[in-house]
Amino acid sequence: MTSNQPYFDLAILGGECLTLDKSFAEYRDSLILTGNGRIEYIGDRKDFIGPYYAGKTIHAQGKIIMPAFFNAHTHLSLSLYRGLGTDLHLQDWLTKVIWPLEKQFCNPENVYLGSCLSVLEMIKSGTATLADMNFFSGHAAKAIEESGLRGFIGEALFSTSTPSIRDPLDGFNVSAALLEKYKGHPTIHPYLVLHAPFTCSADLYREAGLLGKKWGVKVCSHVSETRNEFEQIRSRYGKTPVAWLEETGVLDSDFIAIHMVHASDEDIEILAERNVGIIHNPHSNMLLGSGISPVNKMIDKGIRVGLGTDSASSNNSLSMLTELQTAARLHKVEALDPSVLAARHALQMATSINADIYGLAGITGSLAEGYSADLLIINPDSPNMVPVYDHYSQIVYSMENRNIESLIVNGKVVMEDRKILTLDEEMILREVEKWTKSVSVYDFIRI
Amino acid sequence: MTSNQPYFDLAILGGECLTLDKSFAEYRDSLILTGNGRIEYIGDRKDFIGPYYAGKTIHAQGKIIMPAFFNAHTHLSLSLYRGLGTDLHLQDWLTKVIWPLEKQFCNPENVYLGSCLSVLEMIKSGTATLADMNFFSGHAAKAIEESGLRGFIGEALFSTSTPSIRDPLDGFNVSAALLEKYKGHPTIHPYLVLHAPFTCSADLYREAGLLGKKWGVKVCSHVSETRNEFEQIRSRYGKTPVAWLEETGVLDSDFIAIHMVHASDEDIEILAERNVGIIHNPHSNMLLGSGISPVNKMIDKGIRVGLGTDSASSNNSLSMLTELQTAARLHKVEALDPSVLAARHALQMATSINADIYGLAGITGSLAEGYSADLLIINPDSPNMVPVYDHYSQIVYSMENRNIESLIVNGKVVMEDRKILTLDEEMILREVEKWTKSVSVYDFIRI
Repeated sequence: MTSNQPYFDLAILGGECLTLDKSFAEYRDSLILTGNGRIEYIGDRKDFIGPYYAGKTIHAQGKIIMPAFFNAHTHLSLSLYRGLGTDLHLQDWLTKVIWPLEKQFCNPENVYLGSCLSVLEMIKSGTATLADMNFFSGHAAKAIEESGLRGFIGEALFSTSTPSIRDPLDGFNVSAALLEKYKGHPTIHPYLVLHAPFTCSADLYREAGLLGKKWGVKVCSHVSETRNEFEQIRSRYGKTPVAWLEETGVLDSDFIAIHMVHASDEDIEILAERNVGIIHNPHSNMLLGSGISPVNKMIDKGIRVGLGTDSASSNNSLSMLTELQTAARLHKVEALDPSVLAARHALQMATSINADIYGLAGITGSLAEGYSADLLIINPDSPNMVPVYDHYSQIVYSMENRNIESLIVNGKVVMEDRKILTLDEEMILREVEKWTKSVSVYDFIRI
Repeated sequence: MTSNQPYFDLAILGGECLTLDKSFAEYRDSLILTGNGRIEYIGDRKDFIGPYYAGKTIHAQGKIIMPAFFNAHTHLSLSLYRGLGTDLHLQDWLTKVIWPLEKQFCNPENVYLGSCLSVLEMIKSGTATLADMNFFSGHAAKAIEESGLRGFIGEALFSTSTPSIRDPLDGFNVSAALLEKYKGHPTIHPYLVLHAPFTCSADLYREAGLLGKKWGVKVCSHVSETRNEFEQIRSRYGKTPVAWLEETGVLDSDFIAIHMVHASDEDIEILAERNVGIIHNPHSNMLLGSGISPVNKMIDKGIRVGLGTDSASSNNSLSMLTELQTAARLHKVEALDPSVLAARHALQMATSINADIYGLAGITGSLAEGYSADLLIINPDSPNMVPVYDHYSQIVYSMENRNIESLIVNGKVVMEDRKILTLDEEMILREVEKWTKSVSVYDFIRI
């Protein structure tokens, strides 16, 4: 290394780079150089002038490079209950399975353990950024931080007691404490999380809206997940969940509505006018029989619709790849039109649109100089992806998670050649095994 | 080895075995012993009396053993065009992409090459048996035979010329020759394949029905795939495709209707009465925007509904696992009822129901003594499957192909620890690469 050789932390040499920026720029034989977690150079290899020195070099010839996935809604700790209560309705699944289990087992240790398990799965399926809704969410944050991923963390607030907050009035204090703790943190971003219109009061939404503005954080909530919720709110308040939320003043571009399966045309008008971000969770909505979200209609109205997996207990997978693959297929068949939700759009939903909804446009979700180095290295030389004519099509309709070789988050190599470098995968799996053997979850389920 | 120690070709020792038989029998610590391709012992390890000698032993402690998948509809050679014409309607996809490409490139060598590529993908996703529809289908048969898989092979017949048959009157001769060649073959099963009601005459269906009976083989055809086909047949003949086929006498328990997306209530009555087998291809129907097959209704009427992937060009994957995972989710959300198409049923669609429709009940699709040893060894010790409370749920809603470690077909180890033992994976991928570089497929596409 000589003084006139610039230094970079990481060099990714060769490979076809799909930036997923607005113009879908691509580099056929690319070079990516990072420093302090950011992309300092991205472009064709031949266009980089002069020598450089890199702390680490990854050779990516024959590989595909693209932005890492952003999972815009999940409940990390629930992976401990994966596969329990299968084929049940949401209301039964909640009241007979999940809530009794949470009553019994939801504590800081288990939230941490379940979160560790979930981030392992997310890393192996190429997720760099996630948005979590949890109890004891500081313990989920710990797992995210250790994993090297980027995470939105929020304490799930109800208008009643929760496993973590006995007095509902304490909810915003817990949120404030998280905010204080992670102020200025490069990868852990607190936000305000309200459970749902059927469990939270109008006052709670009103105050969350005001506090969100004051603190400069996003506010999210499950909204209109099931027909049952939709009807319940209508009979309770004489309004749809969206119209009722509109009255609290919480709906604006900083509000994120999770699910939005049931929505009237007027609801969609309100969401568009207020520029609310929607997070669609197709697998969860399908598995629980909740319904097909009017995604095509919302997109037509200019609403930003992103994508999440929901929990490993309602999905039961945390793979953003299979989620976006299903989204693309589902909304084509719903519209009886294969041209809707095209491959490129599906990829944007799982990357740049989510980033925009969460206020991270310009930071993550696509690849450009100055952006965080959050990216995947994909090996397409596999029977399920060959031949590769159209990269976008191949990723959306043919790729499997096993083709994702490496994950880089904030410039740090989190997984290389499918080996996780930040967490001890084997130890976490053994801890989960030990936990499931030490308790009999079946004794607490009411089915 | 002493004279009183019985000899078996293969022993699979330990592991939890899901037989997927009618009673869903399971063995917690199982032993499977095979000879001449068949299962000679299956049960709890402790119940096997005395010593034995095995040519090869696979240790499966901690693993899950289940029947291998049966892919009940595909077009092996089309994987050469994977990802071309994405997000197009069926009619455009056929007339602007697939048919022009077939006109240019469909020849024995390419059918063999594409079929080799497809069977690689199928092996890696746990498929033991497949049903193919092809031109030059003897060359697809060659690839299947070399791979060690079990395959139904059929020359696609039209009432017009095809790439392989200039004079349509020769069609049944080609079929007869295949039948002659593979008579009594343990794993290659010829059948009669007609393309679709909009490309085949009533006479062709009538004669296929009679020949099928005479030869003792199944007859299959695409039926009612799109709204366009449904309306076209109705305007041409004044009848729905099913009612029109009913008149030809071809509909009975030996007839297999592929797709069946559009069906009137009367059609469903006819299909039930004639005990026609249906092959559902959800990904293809979604991706092409063809529609959601009335699977729930057909199952309610007692119709046997199995599952296939269709081609790697309309899907664009040949993974039966993701196909059954989508089927289970799709029909729940269509019915707004999470209890329909439960996990166990989805697994049966991809295994034993397909076997029954193709006349292989008692041979493959579930695990029992006397059945062909067609099975998967799954490693659930992975972040996406842990913890394992409910095996069926975990496989249907959480598993990925990478969890499938080994595939055994007809007692032969086709893939072990994800390494394919029957074909040279690397060489086939290089041959496909060489082919795609030698031709510019884009010059022949009209989009």
